[in-house]
Amino acid sequence: MSSQAGTVRVPQEERTRAMRARLLEATVECLVERGFGGTSTTLVSERAGVSRGAQLHHFPTKNALVVAAVEHLTDVRAAELEKAAAALPTGPRRTRAVLQMLADHFTSPVFTAALELWVAARTDPALLAAVAPLEQRVGRETHRLTVDLLEADEARPGVRELVQATLDLVRGLGLANTITDDVRRRHRILDQWAATLDAALGATPQEDA
Amino acid sequence: MSSQAGTVRVPQEERTRAMRARLLEATVECLVERGFGGTSTTLVSERAGVSRGAQLHHFPTKNALVVAAVEHLTDVRAAELEKAAAALPTGPRRTRAVLQMLADHFTSPVFTAALELWVAARTDPALLAAVAPLEQRVGRETHRLTVDLLEADEARPGVRELVQATLDLVRGLGLANTITDDVRRRHRILDQWAATLDAALGATPQEDA
Repeated sequence: MSSQAGTVRVPQEERTRAMRARLLEATVECLVERGFGGTSTTLVSERAGVSRGAQLHHFPTKNALVVAAVEHLTDVRAAELEKAAAALPTGPRRTRAVLQMLADHFTSPVFTAALELWVAARTDPALLAAVAPLEQRVGRETHRLTVDLLEADEARPGVRELVQATLDLVRGLGLANTITDDVRRRHRILDQWAATLDAALGATPQEDA
Repeated sequence: MSSQAGTVRVPQEERTRAMRARLLEATVECLVERGFGGTSTTLVSERAGVSRGAQLHHFPTKNALVVAAVEHLTDVRAAELEKAAAALPTGPRRTRAVLQMLADHFTSPVFTAALELWVAARTDPALLAAVAPLEQRVGRETHRLTVDLLEADEARPGVRELVQATLDLVRGLGLANTITDDVRRRHRILDQWAATLDAALGATPQEDA
């Protein structure tokens, strides 16, 4: 989007990139609104305002489209998370703020779209083959980011498992939020988790180096 | 099943009950093997060996069938949990054993079938109307059981939230397990959470009455 302003002729490469982004964003919207079963390549190309031919050229199958869409939005969201991380407070309020950031991520449309993919992949071997590597990569990256944000020292016994438990907790909260509005309960749980996590991480003294 | 042995004529009521149970168990098997989208009333009646007419008489729609199936299996499983609870160790190994019991529950076929329902209900208002009350009831019952098993005193600040966090954690672990075999990672996380939970619950002294 950035290089279009002020130019008359948009380079082909830029137009292709914008069209792909429109397709991928329309796919995530479809997954969120209609679920995996209700998402079709026809519906996506209509919503994105892209011809069927162009859509099929870039993403020949529904599986290719949905996996690319969740991967694209995950990368966009990861970049947003990295940026938001810079604004996190330091000191005693930091852990709670990190948890809020993670919980916001796991209740966002990207999580919902990914959930649709995971569940569909469970009974669809071809989709599973495409989703599993993405899921592993995203899992590793989210774990690394969380370790950094919590300034956790994984060399100490139990710290790695507490970071993993934190991510499994927010994943569980994300799932609980899919069919009920769970925001108040979630806030109280995260308040308590932050206190428990600080006590547990503090029990293994940080930064003795 | 119990009253059939040694009798020549099985009472009508008993036969009806057995047929319903076969239909509901076949439905859960279908949900686990083929997902919500791949489950049909025709497939279920074939698998259960029940005529279409009889099936439609008891469960006139797919939604009625899938909700009743998850409710039935949840009740069966809850009864199993209550029974298993009697065999739990007392003393320092208890918390870890409770967590294992919960994790086993949230990685069982009942959880998988329920997950299919939750995700389908997200984009299907009629299904949501039927699933939401079931989900609330099951949530309350599982919470109460967990409080009892952990011998947690919810009158103390933070204890209720720690129990909720424990259930959200095992729900997250259940979701993580749907597309990857996660058993070793899960065990390490539960070991650590048992230690952290004991420390946190112990920090608010129990049983001062």
